Amino acid sequence: MTRLIKALSRLPGIGEKTAARLAFHILRAPASEAVALAESITAVKEKLALCSVCCMITELDPCAICRDPERTGEVICVVEEVKDLYALEKAGGFRGRYHVLHGALSPLDGIGPEDIKYAELMARLNAGGVKEVILATNPDYKGDTTSLFFQERISPLGIKVTRLARGIPVGSELEYTDPQTLGQALKGRREMEE
Amino acid sequence: MTRLIKALSRLPGIGEKTAARLAFHILRAPASEAVALAESITAVKEKLALCSVCCMITELDPCAICRDPERTGEVICVVEEVKDLYALEKAGGFRGRYHVLHGALSPLDGIGPEDIKYAELMARLNAGGVKEVILATNPDYKGDTTSLFFQERISPLGIKVTRLARGIPVGSELEYTDPQTLGQALKGRREMEE
Repeated sequence: MTRLIKALSRLPGIGEKTAARLAFHILRAPASEAVALAESITAVKEKLALCSVCCMITELDPCAICRDPERTGEVICVVEEVKDLYALEKAGGFRGRYHVLHGALSPLDGIGPEDIKYAELMARLNAGGVKEVILATNPDYKGDTTSLFFQERISPLGIKVTRLARGIPVGSELEYTDPQTLGQALKGRREMEE
Repeated sequence: MTRLIKALSRLPGIGEKTAARLAFHILRAPASEAVALAESITAVKEKLALCSVCCMITELDPCAICRDPERTGEVICVVEEVKDLYALEKAGGFRGRYHVLHGALSPLDGIGPEDIKYAELMARLNAGGVKEVILATNPDYKGDTTSLFFQERISPLGIKVTRLARGIPVGSELEYTDPQTLGQALKGRREMEE
């Protein structure tokens, strides 16, 4: 029991008290429920792996997106985390492929290029066929540091490097938009199409 | 007393109960306080007017921005409300002038061009000297309706019409950005400068 509580409390956001509550629930639950939980935990570790192309989590390698013949391999959208890929797919409209870094550069935290899937991306780019890399890192300090680092290394390969537009979010109000975002929206203003 | 309560309850966000509470406060307050309040209300109405050029509220006509020789009259940034102008000035970096519409078009609410400072803007543009109009309306339905209406009328004058960039706000996270905004950020992606 102590071992289970300890294992559970290692999960993010779960303290010792919550872990104990969960452990007692498992203790009281029917055996089938406990077995199902244990098995699905093992299954995740056994069956899910990282796509050897884009580093997305997947059961089949390469992943569904890398295998999709309708998607172009000429445009690669680089994201920090798996959840960012999900967010962009939900937005729809993107018909290229991805590369998941599993992190962002953060010199202050000692996170360098060797801690994220940098080498994997460069190997992909060096293999040729890529015309544009979209750096879709978060618009914060770490994301910007990462984008700059990548841009300096990708541009010399003759590949176009873009980043997501900064600006006012759809449905927001100017009045409540932070000055930095407004400044970027003004700087990045675009000619209206007729 | 009834008259005061009625007058107060006409203010936005103040119901009859709040109005009564305010009225009783005024009744109990020292005479000097009541006089100061009354005088500042009159002063606002007497001294503040709309700038005859840009329709901004001002004590002096034309307003400080329209009088500033360091600001160019070649670029006019059109905003819905006075508070939007303040937000953009806080963002800094804009060295052109403004035009305050005092509203946005909303056909469903019966608000047409004659209800906002449309004629004033067109008169300004027809007078010549303006090279670019930035439509900085809110990124919502009314703001977009207004922008479209203005663009259709300003473009034929040979004036460049732009609008604020839509995209992910600075410091936000992709994961929590709504799909529409992400879609626009992807569509409006920009080449990174070296």
